[in-house]
Amino acid sequence: MDHITSAKNPIIKALRALRDHKGRAAAGRFLVEGEVMLREARKCGLAVRDVLAEENFTDLAGELEATGARAYTVPRSLLEAVCDTRTPQGICASVDLPEPLPLSNAPAKIVALDGVQDPGNVGTIWRTADAAGFGGLLMGAGCADPLSPKVQRSAMGSGFRLPYTPVGDLPAALAELKARGWSVIASDLRGDDFYSHPDPGGKFVLVIGSEAHGISDATRAAADMLVKLPMRGGAESLNAAVAAGIMMYALTR
Amino acid sequence: MDHITSAKNPIIKALRALRDHKGRAAAGRFLVEGEVMLREARKCGLAVRDVLAEENFTDLAGELEATGARAYTVPRSLLEAVCDTRTPQGICASVDLPEPLPLSNAPAKIVALDGVQDPGNVGTIWRTADAAGFGGLLMGAGCADPLSPKVQRSAMGSGFRLPYTPVGDLPAALAELKARGWSVIASDLRGDDFYSHPDPGGKFVLVIGSEAHGISDATRAAADMLVKLPMRGGAESLNAAVAAGIMMYALTR
Repeated sequence: MDHITSAKNPIIKALRALRDHKGRAAAGRFLVEGEVMLREARKCGLAVRDVLAEENFTDLAGELEATGARAYTVPRSLLEAVCDTRTPQGICASVDLPEPLPLSNAPAKIVALDGVQDPGNVGTIWRTADAAGFGGLLMGAGCADPLSPKVQRSAMGSGFRLPYTPVGDLPAALAELKARGWSVIASDLRGDDFYSHPDPGGKFVLVIGSEAHGISDATRAAADMLVKLPMRGGAESLNAAVAAGIMMYALTR
Repeated sequence: MDHITSAKNPIIKALRALRDHKGRAAAGRFLVEGEVMLREARKCGLAVRDVLAEENFTDLAGELEATGARAYTVPRSLLEAVCDTRTPQGICASVDLPEPLPLSNAPAKIVALDGVQDPGNVGTIWRTADAAGFGGLLMGAGCADPLSPKVQRSAMGSGFRLPYTPVGDLPAALAELKARGWSVIASDLRGDDFYSHPDPGGKFVLVIGSEAHGISDATRAAADMLVKLPMRGGAESLNAAVAAGIMMYALTR
């Protein structure tokens, strides 16, 4: 296993370039940090490419080499230069981007995000969708980048397991799914009581809007049902990921 | 309205002391930041004491003076020195601590936190409990400090509205409530399917455990029912605040 000591090494530079959306798109790779997430990525069939490991993670680095990766030992300072977390876990790697799911092959139960901007919310909704038994996510324009380290950290591995489809025009995608038999239920402050909505049937999309502005007018127009969780006490609203979780679990009971 | 320019001014020092639990307990006050939260604190009947305001917030500072507060104009640097947020909103104030609710006066529907450590989770659960129609929170040992700025920020004003009871010995408090007619439902990875649990009746406590270790053995022993949300997909667990939200809304339907 080669040892890298310079931040100017091309491998380090290539990994640092994965910090932003443009770099990830250009390389077709994203950065995965830590042992748990790297094992999960392998379990989900993603190809691990360049591995950086501290001395105490050379066993795992070796295992990843056996799957086709190239591993390098590095000092802590280089891990810190590459990783998003302030105190990196001792190993990270570039991993091939997961294949987006084409809309033509959409699963029965879908969560669609309409401008959900907070990376923690996007990741938490991803994780909850995976737990509730949804088949995939639609990521509309204006959402946090699904392959950013913060989103993937909050998704806790569900970002590798549950496929997503990036859609530039979410209302058009919803209209297409509706024409093919999906019900479209959108969470909206002007909606009817969530618990009184009609049964959406076996194929549906649950749309969650942005934290600040909710769903867009075009999304609202594309929906079959607008729903709102009841506010029984003094709070005026819920955290977007919590509201999404309550609805997802209620819809898949 | 006096103008303060020095970080050594005793008012500034006293407000800075509210940054930690010890300082808040000694002063009987906590720091509330921003216009929305200060208006909410007033609406909930909390007494606002020393107000620091930038020039563009002197109107609100004047309103608060009319309720008995003392207001001072300050430069941005002093707001930054006092506030928890990196980019403070232009006004902050010390506010009398809300009165904890005695256990003898417990509401019918209670959420109990057993070592929930993440301030964002504690605040989000507080906000969701308020939205779902719960009457109050029990804060067991090891929870994030309920009056820390991070908890209050996530609680979005519900921290002023929904009363809480700090309990050193949560299992003893649960036993006391049980003896007085409350059902105790605890979220536990070893529990039965949440959706198959018996109806807890009109008076119940929902216990949420720590992110890393769940509920303690003593809490488990004090519970009537142990419940777990079904994991229908690949995810092994849910975020604590999301799981709490799903259960709270399902229990108050």
